[in-house]
Amino acid sequence: MLDWEQRLSLLRRHDRIVRHPACSAEGAGIDARAGALLFISGQLPIGANGVDPAHQGKLGAGVALEAGQAAARQAALNVLAQANAAVGDLSKLRAVRLGGYVNSAPDFASLPQVVNGASDLVAAVLGENGKHARFAVGVAQLPLNAAVEVEGIFEILS
Amino acid sequence: MLDWEQRLSLLRRHDRIVRHPACSAEGAGIDARAGALLFISGQLPIGANGVDPAHQGKLGAGVALEAGQAAARQAALNVLAQANAAVGDLSKLRAVRLGGYVNSAPDFASLPQVVNGASDLVAAVLGENGKHARFAVGVAQLPLNAAVEVEGIFEILS
Amino acid sequence: MLDWEQRLSLLRRHDRIVRHPACSAEGAGIDARAGALLFISGQLPIGANGVDPAHQGKLGAGVALEAGQAAARQAALNVLAQANAAVGDLSKLRAVRLGGYVNSAPDFASLPQVVNGASDLVAAVLGENGKHARFAVGVAQLPLNAAVEVEGIFEILS
Repeated sequence: MLDWEQRLSLLRRHDRIVRHPACSAEGAGIDARAGALLFISGQLPIGANGVDPAHQGKLGAGVALEAGQAAARQAALNVLAQANAAVGDLSKLRAVRLGGYVNSAPDFASLPQVVNGASDLVAAVLGENGKHARFAVGVAQLPLNAAVEVEGIFEILS
Repeated sequence: MLDWEQRLSLLRRHDRIVRHPACSAEGAGIDARAGALLFISGQLPIGANGVDPAHQGKLGAGVALEAGQAAARQAALNVLAQANAAVGDLSKLRAVRLGGYVNSAPDFASLPQVVNGASDLVAAVLGENGKHARFAVGVAQLPLNAAVEVEGIFEILS
Repeated sequence: MLDWEQRLSLLRRHDRIVRHPACSAEGAGIDARAGALLFISGQLPIGANGVDPAHQGKLGAGVALEAGQAAARQAALNVLAQANAAVGDLSKLRAVRLGGYVNSAPDFASLPQVVNGASDLVAAVLGENGKHARFAVGVAQLPLNAAVEVEGIFEILS
């Protein structure tokens, strides 16, 4: 697990991540709150220079497991950065559920192993508040041909 | 944004939309409420005469972007109509999260653009209560070979 | 609908179902609670001897509708067993939303019929507390090449 300064530093590097232009629909936002629940929109493995080409394509058809896990980690980092930006206090975030969508060839079944990249990152950043329910499924395609998309539900602790 | 009468008129035209017979499982309903949250089951682009053939098939393999957006709009209209029917007062509905599933060929990545059809419609109907988190993923197939399926989570304002 | 002893007996047979090793990420758990909501991670049709080979593969490409429905039933049973284990009192569980992911060939559209296996089981076990919103989509692949994955959201009654 990261110490507190490492966590904040990790997220600060992602402060400037902006919503992809494709998502510029009038009603679509990055997050929405309902009571103590915070919903974060599906995030892609976008880094400082867009999506790393190594994080694009299909698992089982060009993208290796390790690259998929790295993509899941990056997408989860964006989920956390967006949640942190929404609440403004990392210590008030408790992970509830992660949804992991993997861009998959029809015969690639190691989907939990890919999404573990996201789960491990959330555990490392949120510590005891990082434990979550989740699902991992293989989909036909993702925005920007990303290898992974992760969406998240958090509880805002009072 | 539509005015209030336009919104109600739009939804009234959809009052008679019924659940598809395929969904006639004993426990499966159109909506479920938990506290202030309202969950609406996945809706297809069903219109007065069933699913328009133009709204069936795969994006990237026969269905053009514009048709996919129209299908997303129709599916979102059904989500709103069902939510309105459940609560009985459109002004008490606040959008929280939309899930957008697009019937996609393995190389069709313009998924957010398709689902924007749904997000824009929700914003037009609910106005300032229409802002939502969302995800957009490409799936292998959808019920009735529909081009888009949209599910929604709303908050019921008190 | 099953009587109370039948319900408990059904779930007890599933008490020993353990999380699949693939899901051994640090932060990934079987369930997570937020207020009165209980989120159960995506469950596969795992039985006492792992996934029955009859419940593996794609609908529309080797797996018949009846086998898919049986797989959905088994996955839903695991969802309920996990929810029961989390809460410890079946009578306090109310179903809210089921997510049904079907491992599908690109032309298999009878997805609601498959997921009805899950919905009917939840209705049989939870009775009047079993009514739920849901979605059914066809995905490219699932963990362990399972035919169906089901995730669930429940309300914990006080």
